[in-house]
Amino acid sequence: MSAPRHILDAGQFSPAWLHEELFPRADLMREIHALGDSRLLVGRRLFCLFYQPSTRTRISFESAMTLLGGTVSGIEVGAEERRQADEPIEDRVRVLCSYGYDALLIRFHEEGGAARAATASTVPVINAGDGEGQHPTQALLDAYTIRRELGRLDDFEIALVGDLTYERSVNSLAELLAKLPNVRLRFVSPATLRLRPAVRERLTDAGADFEELDDLDAVAASADVLYITRAHSDRMTLAQRFEPVRRSYVVDAEVLGRLKPTAIVLHPLPRGPELAMGLEADPRVAPFRQAENGLYVRMALLTLLLQPGGEPRANS
Amino acid sequence: MSAPRHILDAGQFSPAWLHEELFPRADLMREIHALGDSRLLVGRRLFCLFYQPSTRTRISFESAMTLLGGTVSGIEVGAEERRQADEPIEDRVRVLCSYGYDALLIRFHEEGGAARAATASTVPVINAGDGEGQHPTQALLDAYTIRRELGRLDDFEIALVGDLTYERSVNSLAELLAKLPNVRLRFVSPATLRLRPAVRERLTDAGADFEELDDLDAVAASADVLYITRAHSDRMTLAQRFEPVRRSYVVDAEVLGRLKPTAIVLHPLPRGPELAMGLEADPRVAPFRQAENGLYVRMALLTLLLQPGGEPRANS
Amino acid sequence: MSAPRHILDAGQFSPAWLHEELFPRADLMREIHALGDSRLLVGRRLFCLFYQPSTRTRISFESAMTLLGGTVSGIEVGAEERRQADEPIEDRVRVLCSYGYDALLIRFHEEGGAARAATASTVPVINAGDGEGQHPTQALLDAYTIRRELGRLDDFEIALVGDLTYERSVNSLAELLAKLPNVRLRFVSPATLRLRPAVRERLTDAGADFEELDDLDAVAASADVLYITRAHSDRMTLAQRFEPVRRSYVVDAEVLGRLKPTAIVLHPLPRGPELAMGLEADPRVAPFRQAENGLYVRMALLTLLLQPGGEPRANS
Repeated sequence: MSAPRHILDAGQFSPAWLHEELFPRADLMREIHALGDSRLLVGRRLFCLFYQPSTRTRISFESAMTLLGGTVSGIEVGAEERRQADEPIEDRVRVLCSYGYDALLIRFHEEGGAARAATASTVPVINAGDGEGQHPTQALLDAYTIRRELGRLDDFEIALVGDLTYERSVNSLAELLAKLPNVRLRFVSPATLRLRPAVRERLTDAGADFEELDDLDAVAASADVLYITRAHSDRMTLAQRFEPVRRSYVVDAEVLGRLKPTAIVLHPLPRGPELAMGLEADPRVAPFRQAENGLYVRMALLTLLLQPGGEPRANS
Repeated sequence: MSAPRHILDAGQFSPAWLHEELFPRADLMREIHALGDSRLLVGRRLFCLFYQPSTRTRISFESAMTLLGGTVSGIEVGAEERRQADEPIEDRVRVLCSYGYDALLIRFHEEGGAARAATASTVPVINAGDGEGQHPTQALLDAYTIRRELGRLDDFEIALVGDLTYERSVNSLAELLAKLPNVRLRFVSPATLRLRPAVRERLTDAGADFEELDDLDAVAASADVLYITRAHSDRMTLAQRFEPVRRSYVVDAEVLGRLKPTAIVLHPLPRGPELAMGLEADPRVAPFRQAENGLYVRMALLTLLLQPGGEPRANS
Repeated sequence: MSAPRHILDAGQFSPAWLHEELFPRADLMREIHALGDSRLLVGRRLFCLFYQPSTRTRISFESAMTLLGGTVSGIEVGAEERRQADEPIEDRVRVLCSYGYDALLIRFHEEGGAARAATASTVPVINAGDGEGQHPTQALLDAYTIRRELGRLDDFEIALVGDLTYERSVNSLAELLAKLPNVRLRFVSPATLRLRPAVRERLTDAGADFEELDDLDAVAASADVLYITRAHSDRMTLAQRFEPVRRSYVVDAEVLGRLKPTAIVLHPLPRGPELAMGLEADPRVAPFRQAENGLYVRMALLTLLLQPGGEPRANS
């Protein structure tokens, strides 16, 4: 209820908020979109401040905003520019607030960037990814997708597969799911690309049911959700070179054959060789439904942040 | 009449469609623009997906869309990004469709990119140039300009001059004009920068009246339209070095002096040394009228694609 | 009163125009913004043509335009693109005018770019910085800030500090202030980064009260306005290396201690080490109020240029 209200960290949301606020509103946004454009955010202006490039996150927020009648501006701060004119993010944020924008969507190249921005902002800040830290709106759309695909957001096993050291989507999703009843987290990666210690510690503190494994084969038959991540390929190649036995971190027809008929495969996109083109013909392979859900979840978040009386409830 | 409807290739349009659908509508758009803004496409949203930079094409579509009350979003996929995260264009298109955009304007770095995009799209795709392939909306605005400047789109001689191997505008325009009655195509280039074989074959198959020449002098006095193209300078310089005699592929005062009083000079812009600054003082030199026509043709295309009942008729 | 009307050079504005037209209108824009969005420029379209990157100038104009109900498009012409397709700015401007934009905001990499653009334009051109030449809208917002902070725009001493050879904001501001009664200009820089001769000459011709100094200490106690500029760091470092005695061009707590209680510190941002983070806690350090004023001044300029009967009066 406190102002300014920000979306910085997947840990800030309670299960009750997901079920009572976000998911029903995302369902409503799906219906609103099917009916045509809405005027809910006419005159509201979102600014996108990106220190790293993005396509999906920025574009889905932009589409969400314009579908609701609002407008979007933004800049990308290139690596070169960061080096030449190393203006503190707090200064940029203060200036953007004085220019009258109603909310800031920020992707920063280092962990904690959005939180720093929030300290300087007079309007809501949305974390669109901060280095190897968090990507909370990705976690929210992932959770919404699981709820929608499985029909529930408790009592399931999820295998998170790939480069777990550098994939921030995993940090946020794991932290969010750790709060939900009877969710069994299985982290599958090469030994050199395990969860970062800080993430492991938070999961332990939260009493999460989690295990770290090094082979997808061990969980393919039992998982309800297979969450494959982008193989940042140089690192994956290097990691696998030092494995005593080559393991699989790829979804192919053989893995699909061992999956339960009711299981789903998610992927935050863009995909690489870890999820071959064409596999989406299997109805359990849901990354495009997941991407579409991103639109509705972000429409929901924007209306929660920018409509009077619409602020998200924080539990931490 | 079939959905989804796309603009991929200059070959898809019939002379009847040009004369009965496109040109009258472009004339109407000119009048609408003179009166002020229109609301024809309020709430419609165009997405520009560009794998190569563009100024004129993207900006004229953007201006066309906003003059009609619609909105525009877009990204440029840089060469670096293409290498690092080589996401298939089909995936990008599927995601953009799920984000609710109403049409996609796509420039791709390889021939066939827009056609690949169309297979994955649930909304109209407009080819804004695909590598060395086609640039159909450029051909449509060129044809509209000739019709407007000469007062007819048949019975004329056009000299297409310059680097004919790599200039996609020429491919599309030649293919479009080959369908029209009594159009005499004269291709003028160094021997090493001739028409690509596939283009030559299509012209032969269409029974076009065409010749390939190596000197502008041979046609300057007889041409009704002189279509000068950008000299991609390194290639032109290299090509001319191996010519036994240096030929001219440049419009200067001397060439203008030999042109018919009723002839026109077109250029797709941006211009280089092949059309010197200031020559546009001659009223026959029409590249800026040609550029302005691009606005009206693109307004016409957008309304044909996005207004109910407005789809273009395809004859192939 | 003559059309087209442009904003090219700080020298084009008279003190009367500042006091009677611009400042009251900027005050009005502040009130309009506080009340919410305005519809003053609905349907008007600004195009931003940037040959050098910008954040503050472009974003504040974009925010100003959209707060007034207008829309904004634009491109950045990168250094690479400038080299590969060296299209004359006049050509670009002619095409943009034919696409129907209502005003052009132009930043060019060489002095005189906006003036060249204006010769080819049928709509108002606003100079957003031309190489080492002018940045007139920065000068206008600086003047508005001084008037607002000091309560007057005459009878004060201003110290302009830093790299005075390459900082175009200083050129424009000095030229503007030289017209106002009893303004004492003190230019403080290393000997190798003095005012450019052309600027010095214009100030002499205008009969300005100005001095060039090499140490901030000499003016800290007497200045009413301390205008610190970005230290283009390589040049500043180099310049100071050859100084016989290291001088100060930095605002720190010690300098603040010697400033008058009624003095103000301005900075065009982004700041570097010349104005340490946190100093803005001192209410005399005003760069964020200055940035916010930029929004109101640019809203005022856009309405003056784009509303019927709103043209600025030129006195030169």
